[in-house]
Amino acid sequence: MPRNICVEPYMATPIEKQQIELVERKGVGHPDSIADGLAESVSRALCKEYIDKCGGVLHHNTDETQIVAGRSIPKFGGGQVIQPIYILLVGRATKDFQGIDIPTDTIALKTARNYLKNTLPSLDVDSDVILDCKFGRGSSDLTHVFGRDGKMPVANDTSFGVGHAPFSELEQIVYNTERSLIEDFKKKKGNKYVGEDMKVMGLRNGDDITLTICSGLVGKYVDDIGAYVNCIDEMKDYVLDLVPKYTDRNVDVMINTADEIEKESVFLTVTGTSAEMGDDGSVGRGNRSNGLITPNRPMSMEATSGKNPINHIGKIYNLLATQIARQIAVELDDVDDVYVKLLSQIGHPIDQPLIASAQIVTKPGAKFDSVRKEAEGIVDEWLANTRRITEMVAKGELDTF
Amino acid sequence: MPRNICVEPYMATPIEKQQIELVERKGVGHPDSIADGLAESVSRALCKEYIDKCGGVLHHNTDETQIVAGRSIPKFGGGQVIQPIYILLVGRATKDFQGIDIPTDTIALKTARNYLKNTLPSLDVDSDVILDCKFGRGSSDLTHVFGRDGKMPVANDTSFGVGHAPFSELEQIVYNTERSLIEDFKKKKGNKYVGEDMKVMGLRNGDDITLTICSGLVGKYVDDIGAYVNCIDEMKDYVLDLVPKYTDRNVDVMINTADEIEKESVFLTVTGTSAEMGDDGSVGRGNRSNGLITPNRPMSMEATSGKNPINHIGKIYNLLATQIARQIAVELDDVDDVYVKLLSQIGHPIDQPLIASAQIVTKPGAKFDSVRKEAEGIVDEWLANTRRITEMVAKGELDTF
Amino acid sequence: MPRNICVEPYMATPIEKQQIELVERKGVGHPDSIADGLAESVSRALCKEYIDKCGGVLHHNTDETQIVAGRSIPKFGGGQVIQPIYILLVGRATKDFQGIDIPTDTIALKTARNYLKNTLPSLDVDSDVILDCKFGRGSSDLTHVFGRDGKMPVANDTSFGVGHAPFSELEQIVYNTERSLIEDFKKKKGNKYVGEDMKVMGLRNGDDITLTICSGLVGKYVDDIGAYVNCIDEMKDYVLDLVPKYTDRNVDVMINTADEIEKESVFLTVTGTSAEMGDDGSVGRGNRSNGLITPNRPMSMEATSGKNPINHIGKIYNLLATQIARQIAVELDDVDDVYVKLLSQIGHPIDQPLIASAQIVTKPGAKFDSVRKEAEGIVDEWLANTRRITEMVAKGELDTF
Amino acid sequence: MPRNICVEPYMATPIEKQQIELVERKGVGHPDSIADGLAESVSRALCKEYIDKCGGVLHHNTDETQIVAGRSIPKFGGGQVIQPIYILLVGRATKDFQGIDIPTDTIALKTARNYLKNTLPSLDVDSDVILDCKFGRGSSDLTHVFGRDGKMPVANDTSFGVGHAPFSELEQIVYNTERSLIEDFKKKKGNKYVGEDMKVMGLRNGDDITLTICSGLVGKYVDDIGAYVNCIDEMKDYVLDLVPKYTDRNVDVMINTADEIEKESVFLTVTGTSAEMGDDGSVGRGNRSNGLITPNRPMSMEATSGKNPINHIGKIYNLLATQIARQIAVELDDVDDVYVKLLSQIGHPIDQPLIASAQIVTKPGAKFDSVRKEAEGIVDEWLANTRRITEMVAKGELDTF
Repeated sequence: MPRNICVEPYMATPIEKQQIELVERKGVGHPDSIADGLAESVSRALCKEYIDKCGGVLHHNTDETQIVAGRSIPKFGGGQVIQPIYILLVGRATKDFQGIDIPTDTIALKTARNYLKNTLPSLDVDSDVILDCKFGRGSSDLTHVFGRDGKMPVANDTSFGVGHAPFSELEQIVYNTERSLIEDFKKKKGNKYVGEDMKVMGLRNGDDITLTICSGLVGKYVDDIGAYVNCIDEMKDYVLDLVPKYTDRNVDVMINTADEIEKESVFLTVTGTSAEMGDDGSVGRGNRSNGLITPNRPMSMEATSGKNPINHIGKIYNLLATQIARQIAVELDDVDDVYVKLLSQIGHPIDQPLIASAQIVTKPGAKFDSVRKEAEGIVDEWLANTRRITEMVAKGELDTF
Repeated sequence: MPRNICVEPYMATPIEKQQIELVERKGVGHPDSIADGLAESVSRALCKEYIDKCGGVLHHNTDETQIVAGRSIPKFGGGQVIQPIYILLVGRATKDFQGIDIPTDTIALKTARNYLKNTLPSLDVDSDVILDCKFGRGSSDLTHVFGRDGKMPVANDTSFGVGHAPFSELEQIVYNTERSLIEDFKKKKGNKYVGEDMKVMGLRNGDDITLTICSGLVGKYVDDIGAYVNCIDEMKDYVLDLVPKYTDRNVDVMINTADEIEKESVFLTVTGTSAEMGDDGSVGRGNRSNGLITPNRPMSMEATSGKNPINHIGKIYNLLATQIARQIAVELDDVDDVYVKLLSQIGHPIDQPLIASAQIVTKPGAKFDSVRKEAEGIVDEWLANTRRITEMVAKGELDTF
Repeated sequence: MPRNICVEPYMATPIEKQQIELVERKGVGHPDSIADGLAESVSRALCKEYIDKCGGVLHHNTDETQIVAGRSIPKFGGGQVIQPIYILLVGRATKDFQGIDIPTDTIALKTARNYLKNTLPSLDVDSDVILDCKFGRGSSDLTHVFGRDGKMPVANDTSFGVGHAPFSELEQIVYNTERSLIEDFKKKKGNKYVGEDMKVMGLRNGDDITLTICSGLVGKYVDDIGAYVNCIDEMKDYVLDLVPKYTDRNVDVMINTADEIEKESVFLTVTGTSAEMGDDGSVGRGNRSNGLITPNRPMSMEATSGKNPINHIGKIYNLLATQIARQIAVELDDVDDVYVKLLSQIGHPIDQPLIASAQIVTKPGAKFDSVRKEAEGIVDEWLANTRRITEMVAKGELDTF
Repeated sequence: MPRNICVEPYMATPIEKQQIELVERKGVGHPDSIADGLAESVSRALCKEYIDKCGGVLHHNTDETQIVAGRSIPKFGGGQVIQPIYILLVGRATKDFQGIDIPTDTIALKTARNYLKNTLPSLDVDSDVILDCKFGRGSSDLTHVFGRDGKMPVANDTSFGVGHAPFSELEQIVYNTERSLIEDFKKKKGNKYVGEDMKVMGLRNGDDITLTICSGLVGKYVDDIGAYVNCIDEMKDYVLDLVPKYTDRNVDVMINTADEIEKESVFLTVTGTSAEMGDDGSVGRGNRSNGLITPNRPMSMEATSGKNPINHIGKIYNLLATQIARQIAVELDDVDDVYVKLLSQIGHPIDQPLIASAQIVTKPGAKFDSVRKEAEGIVDEWLANTRRITEMVAKGELDTF
């Protein structure tokens, strides 16, 4: 059965030519990202357990993790969490299958603890967090739905996913600023004071880029207000050194703009995340599955993290649309921007969307017809191989936030 | 101080000319919408109490409501909830102010019960729901932040809001299909079997529109499979009668496409919402503040429902951007589409965004310069009157989902 | 198989001759009693449902109800609950049996709401209480254990029950003071100000009895401090009129001894129970199954309320021991006091205790041998009819606290 | 002011002469004991923190710990917890005092984790337990009540405590059987298979003692059914060797009487406690403060564990009554049995009970008058030094269960 694929030319001001562009990324220690990360890591651990014990992924969705903020007293050189952060892992998971019991909740607790330890090294998981878990029962007999009969799984919902490529300059900058500050500047270069709860907001106004960065420094690694000012300066210098890799435009970097240095009223944390003090978090309210929030681009509302990668169409189609867009952008030279949208219909096989749309902004002078066919081929091939997404997710090869 | 306002022409295929358009609306009984509705109604009740007792709205955010699905056995002519739906109202609220105690949690419980009774008439709130409430303490001494000193409140975050206008044909159809089925067809015309948990997914492929509607009928008002088929037919006829108000295009309506009539495997509920059986819900994961999910349009990830309307910039700027866009679209004849984006910077007055951007697609033949000035004026005036949004929210004049 | 019955003479100072006697009763609105009452009423409702749907009582224990106190601001003429009371119904119950689903948690919620409304008429169950429910799954296939095969159920534990009779004067006074103040003085005579959270502590020192009564009056029915003093006087007069029915000794009555009238610092509540303000409650920590706490008498630690009446030996043996003791005391004229103890062994039929002991204090001049045989007969007959206890409990004919 | 002390002769069959005696002890791994132990260890940790930071113990009661059982699959040589045990630490505690914040909940979590690790070495606290904590706020300004003004604290309630001494033979046996099996046989001698969840039920019928012991062996230290039988035999032999220290009577020892060896249906656990599988636990429902449940002796219903040791009269008077009884029994040669009861009246200083009663059974031939005066002196002196109990509790010198 041929697929409903529609590749159309899209006449639009290319993103780099638009006057105003906004891009945001919430870092891994932002409460919403913590929720995403916990949800997805628990889902991966369950996938592994299901495959090991039952030979295939079973029904589960662990995407309703809720983070209720605690209370803390940050201080230069120390500080203390006064009221623990409450984390509720919610969702549903198959707990028994053909006589095999799957200890979903014990796996979830252990996985979540490890995730928190790795992601937030300054958080004392033994005393600063209450980790609760309430998984309902998933349906273990959805053999057909879960493709265990060799057939293509069917969509669990009428839902869509979107993706675009390539990243604009600003998108690259915003994404890599957070990633580099954590992975390189903090972890490799040893600047432990950087808080994982970082928010990078990029505004491009013509050729002027403003990066507004918010990051709660870890008090125990900052001795006093003087040290704090130095830390902020070091971070700023680091980012200013980083951005020329991605742009020739002017970049202005502002960090913790609400600080009042003379009053010593600055953004300090005990644990590196503002979940310690008043900021709650939920799955699916932060970064889209490409790691960014991009109001100048099509987006989906679907929470991707924590959904099962077998038949949860919201997850699969968002990841798939992004893969398709990226391949089109990489392989077809004449493409400036490509936007992919996939729409499922509940009960239909996931490789047969109601529509698979690719909107392509071609390069000046390029002909649309030259790219249509190849783009259609790429879309069709990915759809035929939808299950690859499932495998990549289960192996942890695809980020979801 | 002049405001950073940027009105730019936007060269894009107008929405009605794009080949593929997707629009979705989750009805008021969808678990995500229930979460939104509870969060917002509780916030409104708190606003009222704060104004009555303290002379002004105090700090609160009740936007982390979580709905954990129950379990039910729907049946023609009846059915039963087996495991209650668990609803956790989470957030923070000011509980005392200058010696006055505010019973935030008792207000929340009562408000939430009433909201559920009004929104889901087939739900027995006394036995089918566990209503839990865990509000942390908000900061009661943020006098300045909350504008109690007569000054403009300052933004609580670096965040943006977006809005667009006018609604496309498909947007109007999707929005009004759900609204009319509930308010007119069910409530006024007495077709009680319609489930409040409705999802309307609109796909326009050129001039062909497909509406895929999912609605869990209420078992006690449907006697048997024959009656069920009649109900679906009545709903379909109603929608087919409705849509010509909004479009001349072909419209195909499909309801509950996963039903297997001959097996009597159909979408039935006890209470009208699938939260009774397996579908969890969260605030901010469903409709945007204009009531729709529109991947062809710019969107913001911010949860609008349940945020305080004083300094929560994510809420205010989304609502404000929509108001601005609508006024521009209504008043300026030459405008085809307008997209508004507002970006705040934490700590700065909310009437002074880092950027206020309006991208305007003008009508064929129209000159952009003729609309720029007027558009700028509208943006500026709304920003100067930002507090009007606060008042409208507190009075319940603005929908948030 | 003959039963292990041991009836022995007990040489002890009879209770009325002991110099010091202490007796306590926690009223129905005491947080521990609320927990007991909820646990038992839910168990009864489940018994009824199991019998109706499955033909017999199935495994359940609902005896872990926990009450976490709220916060309130009582006032003369009104007052307000600021933080709702949190009530967690915990335990386990059979949720499905031979294909039949039993909606245990919805039944529990509805039953608990009704119990609270009836027991605490000044409590607004819609806003002053959070009612949560977490029932684990009981084992539905314990056919043998639950006597569904026609055999005697076997004990679920190695445990004992105790009972004594008759009530001493002080025991009668303490029990009936609370019962009459609520059922007669408040309900029949209309003195609505009496708080259900009452504690009656009786001390007999020789022939002088001191009743220390603690009762949080309901603020909305008490206009001011003058009215409060009147209420206390009326209650005191009522009790002084009541006690001569039970004793000729001197009785001193003291109510709310911690009050400081001149400072208007008195024991007032909004709802009639101190669970509204700081006092938590648990099942099994208050009255024993005879309604009293009697350190001068043998007692068991077993929580009786909420246990299933089929094989929960702690419940059955406490109720049974009391019935046996009462019958012996009533029917055998020569008995002054009788103490019954029943000890089970896990896995053995409940009508075959490891030991059934009756210690009998005979009247002066009476011969023990004359009562032994009859007492043995009574013990043996009750053991043979152990299931009568089950029936009486399921029908609500036996109080448990 | 002289104290109300009443020392009276008590004519009763001495305990060793009564035909039937029952004594029970729940081991440290019994769910009720875990609840007690957590409650008391958290209270001690808070006492220490309050003393360190604020110079004295502040208001708190952590006595409402609730343990909701998990689900497990025990196996010879291993086994697995499928559903974690849920532990809710509930109570109230002073969270700030004169500007000092006390991180009560973080202290509670850390203390509870350590307690569980030490008490249940086979329990994986990282995955087999959900540790939740909900402490309400205690009153920080009860300066007078908490004796911070140098005055004697006043009783928080009208309540009583009881104690007796010396222990009977059976009481010594039951207590020491559990203590020795855990501390000596398991810990020192390395028999790791012994489960901490042990229940020892002692029945003395004349001169025949039956010890019924229930202990869920730890599966990973028991290879198969043969090994299991050996373990049980070893334990039995150990106990039979132990008891002659305490009695010359015949002692029969029965362990895990519900086992069916041939069916391999035996009492095995993964973690050493049946909280892993179906058995819930609560504070105050197990052992009295002397470590035993003794229906032949006066008992109090008060939960001792987790109460604050400053003004919680139920805790203080139970511990005090036991100390008084023990000193009388040790120092006065003519005493066979002594029963002490202390009754407070709310609002009165804790060293001035409404009555302090000591009932003394003298040795045959001894004269009561010879002991009265000395007994009165002991009672009076302990009451005058009531605060010593507070200190001993804060230092962890007194067991509470």
